Amino acid sequence: MELTFVTSNEGKFREAAEIAAGYGIKLNWKKMKYLEPQGSNLEEIARLSAEVLSRELDGRFFLEDSGLFVEALKGFPGPYSSYVFKTIGNEGILRLMEGVENRRAYFLAVIAYFDGKNVRTFSGKAEGEISTEMRGSKGFGYDPVFLYGSKTFAEMGGEKNKISHRRKALETFFSYVMRNQG
Amino acid sequence: MELTFVTSNEGKFREAAEIAAGYGIKLNWKKMKYLEPQGSNLEEIARLSAEVLSRELDGRFFLEDSGLFVEALKGFPGPYSSYVFKTIGNEGILRLMEGVENRRAYFLAVIAYFDGKNVRTFSGKAEGEISTEMRGSKGFGYDPVFLYGSKTFAEMGGEKNKISHRRKALETFFSYVMRNQG
Repeated sequence: MELTFVTSNEGKFREAAEIAAGYGIKLNWKKMKYLEPQGSNLEEIARLSAEVLSRELDGRFFLEDSGLFVEALKGFPGPYSSYVFKTIGNEGILRLMEGVENRRAYFLAVIAYFDGKNVRTFSGKAEGEISTEMRGSKGFGYDPVFLYGSKTFAEMGGEKNKISHRRKALETFFSYVMRNQG
Repeated sequence: MELTFVTSNEGKFREAAEIAAGYGIKLNWKKMKYLEPQGSNLEEIARLSAEVLSRELDGRFFLEDSGLFVEALKGFPGPYSSYVFKTIGNEGILRLMEGVENRRAYFLAVIAYFDGKNVRTFSGKAEGEISTEMRGSKGFGYDPVFLYGSKTFAEMGGEKNKISHRRKALETFFSYVMRNQG
């Protein structure tokens, strides 16, 4: 079967296409930016994005959104992780977490799938902690401050893709689609 | 003449209605939440919000969005001021600014007006600095950490409304509408 992934990010598309292949799914790339509404949580934002986009696009498609959620910061930077990274960055996160004991955090990825009629969401989580300093040079974004076990995501390289929030969300989604095809 | 202000915030509506009255404008309140897209700046967000909303509402209307922009933090919290306030709050802003010499910041308000055909934006700014501690108990949001001259907005009370970014944006907008009516 074929599915269409709407994203302007080539790296995301390639990672997803590789995982999809394992399910016998051929992924098509719809390379475009779309309107992302503001919202109180990622599920809501992904769902609204897909609903708005479904008025523009023909047929079925899915999109993905993700973010870092720090428990002691009430979920900040959460839905606005990308804007926060571009402004205060990892230095900002470490500063906000100086002396804070509870360092629990998670990455969340949400997929919103428009099946031609309705939007369904699927999510994946990677739970870890905020480190006390930046470590590692692989990956991108918040990877250097996100501890998963004893390593940060930026120290893990390829291993990260095996346990990432995005992979979990994609696997949940692809399994659903294969079970419900036809 | 009459204008419709779309906002779910009664305080904002009342302040605007009072200023409008000074221009001989009667303000109608359309109390509703609307979809606010994410975007790189407030103008873009306000404009897109109005464009999306213009497909739903009949006739002319305007809406308003505002935020705090801190120069040393690359404009953070900017378009996401309200989310950032709900999570890391004023304590977070002070922490991020600890030991930072350049404390320049401004409040920006943007009005997007749909005139039945096109969307136009109007803006107002209040320039000041981030204080080193919270001061004052009036106002709301970032007011206790925003120094305007020697006082914070939270120490100013009524005076603040005379020089606020929102008032400036509303005055620019109402002047435009009065010049171009008919």
